[in-house]
Amino acid sequence: MRLLYPENVEDIALGAAVLGTGGGGDPYIGKLMGIQAIREYGPVTLISLEEVKDDDLIVPSAMMGAPTVIVEKLPKGDEIIKAFKSLESYLGREITATMSAEAGGLNSVTPLTVAARLRIPLVDGDGMGRAFPELQMVTATLYGISATPFSMGDEKGNSAILNTINNRWTETFSRTITIDMGCTAMIACYSTTGRELKEWAVPNTISLAEKIGRTIREAQAAKREVVEAVREVVGGFQIFKGKIVDVVRRTVAGFARGEATFEGVDDYASQTLKLHFQNENLVAILDGEIVVSVPDLITVLDTETGQPITTESLRYGFRVTVLGIPCAPQWRTPEGLALVGPRYFGYEIDWVPVEERYGSKR
Amino acid sequence: MRLLYPENVEDIALGAAVLGTGGGGDPYIGKLMGIQAIREYGPVTLISLEEVKDDDLIVPSAMMGAPTVIVEKLPKGDEIIKAFKSLESYLGREITATMSAEAGGLNSVTPLTVAARLRIPLVDGDGMGRAFPELQMVTATLYGISATPFSMGDEKGNSAILNTINNRWTETFSRTITIDMGCTAMIACYSTTGRELKEWAVPNTISLAEKIGRTIREAQAAKREVVEAVREVVGGFQIFKGKIVDVVRRTVAGFARGEATFEGVDDYASQTLKLHFQNENLVAILDGEIVVSVPDLITVLDTETGQPITTESLRYGFRVTVLGIPCAPQWRTPEGLALVGPRYFGYEIDWVPVEERYGSKR
Repeated sequence: MRLLYPENVEDIALGAAVLGTGGGGDPYIGKLMGIQAIREYGPVTLISLEEVKDDDLIVPSAMMGAPTVIVEKLPKGDEIIKAFKSLESYLGREITATMSAEAGGLNSVTPLTVAARLRIPLVDGDGMGRAFPELQMVTATLYGISATPFSMGDEKGNSAILNTINNRWTETFSRTITIDMGCTAMIACYSTTGRELKEWAVPNTISLAEKIGRTIREAQAAKREVVEAVREVVGGFQIFKGKIVDVVRRTVAGFARGEATFEGVDDYASQTLKLHFQNENLVAILDGEIVVSVPDLITVLDTETGQPITTESLRYGFRVTVLGIPCAPQWRTPEGLALVGPRYFGYEIDWVPVEERYGSKR
Repeated sequence: MRLLYPENVEDIALGAAVLGTGGGGDPYIGKLMGIQAIREYGPVTLISLEEVKDDDLIVPSAMMGAPTVIVEKLPKGDEIIKAFKSLESYLGREITATMSAEAGGLNSVTPLTVAARLRIPLVDGDGMGRAFPELQMVTATLYGISATPFSMGDEKGNSAILNTINNRWTETFSRTITIDMGCTAMIACYSTTGRELKEWAVPNTISLAEKIGRTIREAQAAKREVVEAVREVVGGFQIFKGKIVDVVRRTVAGFARGEATFEGVDDYASQTLKLHFQNENLVAILDGEIVVSVPDLITVLDTETGQPITTESLRYGFRVTVLGIPCAPQWRTPEGLALVGPRYFGYEIDWVPVEERYGSKR
């Protein structure tokens, strides 16, 4: 158990953008909200999975929607509290803690606002170990945990409680309502007991995000090689270095979809890398061949500063280095791959662990 | 207070198709469900508005969706009970009676299933005095009654409770979820106290539907002029007689939209009438001029049998007579016309009461 202050939130948000694999939403907004809530209500208590009691009731809180819209439509801050409290009242039981559904991007820091304002602890862990675009894509689904009762609300004051027969249906309904709500919504879901949580959560991911953020900050201050420092702390592999020559981006069915093209430099001269993304980076295609794919993480860093770049910030001319990072072990099972593997996203290939292809040339 | 037996349901369903103005869904399905429920659980108690107690809690129940889909995708019967009970448990109060949100079409008889199976009375009245395509189009909206908490469910077992800032937003959210649910859903909404209900409800519409149905049945048996008998009992006007020469129909955004063209016969020879519909008939256009429009009712009857024809049953070659029927007085106010008048549906005309244009030539 330890306390999180604004400076911790800065590091968590920075590191979360690395785990966000280009998506999960720009953590900037969530960071501002979290810091403001801590300034107003005091520091947030971060507890480890081991410190969660078996009969605790934990409810992840998050923002849902297209990252491209989220950066332009700021939440007021009380929508997420309303969605959370409305679920609590529906459940008829006190919620003892909140947590991140995804450790990547915006949603690594969104629950800080809930934890601070409601003075409940934040659990150090999440349901992905990264960010994924769809709601059913959490390790909880693999363990039979229902996303419902699912609470959602918008900044206008509209709200909904969904109950569905499986988590794929929750995604369907909540996605269309999110679109109706203006492409962003505040959600609370996957309510779970402490006992269940210890089975399905990816542990320590908030601390990991913080460590990544601190590494970037310190390496930048010491003028060390930031990209290499990040690669080390995440246990990843460098798969490309180049500059952005094209970005195509469109908001479809509530998602930010698109594709970025990079021309190689140095060792990668005359090679071309393409990234396809749906909120998050899905596959990295080197000269026509998929070399890294979901569920492994694909993260784009600014080659000079080591700063992670989200898909909505990709711009022509940026000099970038692309990392591949092994995903959490939960995703490396047949059930995990069925839920978030390349075939789910329409790529007719078998997943090859990133370390298998790049392990020798780390 | 009186009891409704299967033979009453037959008449109500038949008459409701007249008030349905082509929409509200073919009552056939609802009739079968209602009759089956009465056979199994006993007759339904119909109570008048005067018999409702001020502190009663009344919740209308209905099916939502595209009539074209409803006739092909039969409900199991327990979905509507689930949606209703789920609202009751959300409200935390016993619901004392149910009623029709719309007196036209399917939804005039849908609540019979709820009333029979839950052994609660059905109130003789509705929120339209006809059928309308959108959810906020009830007299309750004019009296500031919220559609929410709004409960909906599908045949698969998915359900949702919505809370919105106004009834237009309820329409938006529930329509997209209905589409996700496969274009049909079971709903319970507009929970209201007896005191409120006496203000906003259109009274005696179930009895009116039954009277219309009985009139059709008896006139058919006596081989009298059925169309003229219907016209008299509803206080309507004959606006056209002809045959159907064209029907265009498409399911868009969860609605059955389209247009039917009629060539005149007898007094109407060489004239052409077009009907535009969105689930219900919206406007009747005679030789290019709108002659009857929402909120007044436009009903198509088989010229020979007097049988009402829903928009999804319109077919090339049918010989039909078209009636215009004055709508309930609640709709004839500026607020009523803003909610359901021709301009809401995109027709840039002022509403002219049907009796003003046709009163002299009844």
